[in-house]
Amino acid sequence: MAVETLEKHACFGGSLRFLRHESAELGVPATFGVFLPPGIGNAREAGARLPVIHLLAGLHGDERSFLTKSGIVRLAAERGIALVAPDTSPRGAGIPGEEEGGPPGIGASFYVDATREPWSRHYRMASYIGAELPALTEALFPLDPARRGIIGHSMGGMGALIQALGHPERWRTVSVFAPVCFPSAVPGGQKAFDAYFGGDPSKWKEYDPTVMLRSGKRHPSTILADLGLQDPYLADLRLDALNEAARESGQKLDLRRHDEYDHSYWFVQSFIADHVAHHAAGLS
Amino acid sequence: MAVETLEKHACFGGSLRFLRHESAELGVPATFGVFLPPGIGNAREAGARLPVIHLLAGLHGDERSFLTKSGIVRLAAERGIALVAPDTSPRGAGIPGEEEGGPPGIGASFYVDATREPWSRHYRMASYIGAELPALTEALFPLDPARRGIIGHSMGGMGALIQALGHPERWRTVSVFAPVCFPSAVPGGQKAFDAYFGGDPSKWKEYDPTVMLRSGKRHPSTILADLGLQDPYLADLRLDALNEAARESGQKLDLRRHDEYDHSYWFVQSFIADHVAHHAAGLS
Repeated sequence: MAVETLEKHACFGGSLRFLRHESAELGVPATFGVFLPPGIGNAREAGARLPVIHLLAGLHGDERSFLTKSGIVRLAAERGIALVAPDTSPRGAGIPGEEEGGPPGIGASFYVDATREPWSRHYRMASYIGAELPALTEALFPLDPARRGIIGHSMGGMGALIQALGHPERWRTVSVFAPVCFPSAVPGGQKAFDAYFGGDPSKWKEYDPTVMLRSGKRHPSTILADLGLQDPYLADLRLDALNEAARESGQKLDLRRHDEYDHSYWFVQSFIADHVAHHAAGLS
Repeated sequence: MAVETLEKHACFGGSLRFLRHESAELGVPATFGVFLPPGIGNAREAGARLPVIHLLAGLHGDERSFLTKSGIVRLAAERGIALVAPDTSPRGAGIPGEEEGGPPGIGASFYVDATREPWSRHYRMASYIGAELPALTEALFPLDPARRGIIGHSMGGMGALIQALGHPERWRTVSVFAPVCFPSAVPGGQKAFDAYFGGDPSKWKEYDPTVMLRSGKRHPSTILADLGLQDPYLADLRLDALNEAARESGQKLDLRRHDEYDHSYWFVQSFIADHVAHHAAGLS
């Protein structure tokens, strides 16, 4: 388990690192960010483990996007919560066309485990973010596997919902900003799913948050979701479908709609404090 | 005074804009960012004007750097302070070699008014940030010319010190992160000054914060300065020279040195709240 430290910065009395490792799931070197809040040394000595929130960025983002643009580091430091931020796809797999601004391709993994060639060998982000990266970071740092939360934005919101509904035992808390909710019903999602799964309808259902809710998947906590009503992708996100499926299935969903806000990190940072409070309450 | 709105985002109950105008000083279109805190509409109706902090980014940054990476927008929103963020140089002047990673050149203006050809026509950032941009933004928005502060990072810290010491009537409050303090004594500053001024020693003195202090320039307020002791550019910043010149001249300088911190925005965001509090107190 060789892990290379690319950068380490003191930040808010804690530390912000970018690390690289050879990912078994992705079959390429993968970079991720980690923030450890102040007092981590004391925690380690006392044998304590800290709550942690994993951060999933949107289309064409990377491991820096959420940490740099959302303002979450200050808030996590204040509450003693660690952060883990993966990249948005494998990079350097060498698949023809993967750099041409997908989906499918680099920065556009949709956080699924692809089953169709040529993507199936490397594009295994569901297993990477759901299992490999949590295990790695919890081996490296004193993070508590029983107190994991997940936040996602846009494509990352879809990833967070898939993780939370598909594997509720992994994630105690979940919240999303402007998530892709019903990918099998919109052109961008269809394009990604066709590339990553081909015609296999079972896979399309496995990775669609709205369909997952309709088929009985649940998360035991209340999912917090924020949406800007000036989001230019509103019609493609389909929060309406997610909200209806949640209502019909009994999934607790706190969907907040905000006049004037759009899809950007200027929107995300405006409400990130409520998300950190939501996770802090659930992970305490 | 044609001003084009490139982007407008709701943010923390206020608005974050990127605007472009034809700059008379720079002779090219220039882009800048503006944050207006919540309640600006009420202020305008009541004829009130808000305090404003101008933000100067470092080498190879732009008008987005400080707003995106420092976390200042949340804090300005909480205190009802507006923000103005210029670019770090003119762009598109068409000077041979200006894009090759200066100084001199794009992103590396050192915030001076160049006097040497070919830079003298366009590289007039001192007049741009000191007069043209404040006048423009105060004409567009209800900002108070009598309650202006300035914050700079690295090369932008030098710009803020030059502005504050050279024109204390323009800026009521000033603070800096890891500023370039003694450019005429270090290779990077010498390279920039030689390009922008040639051999004219009067200009070198006019734009060197340490020399300005030695020659009797003062700012009536206490200048707040933060420095990370793991800053890789420590030897080139020369905070020691600034601190000694301030002590000898009676300039009030609150220089804080921080173990473990480096030169990055992870350092800046860790202490930005203290800077906003410093300005809020001085601009109240």
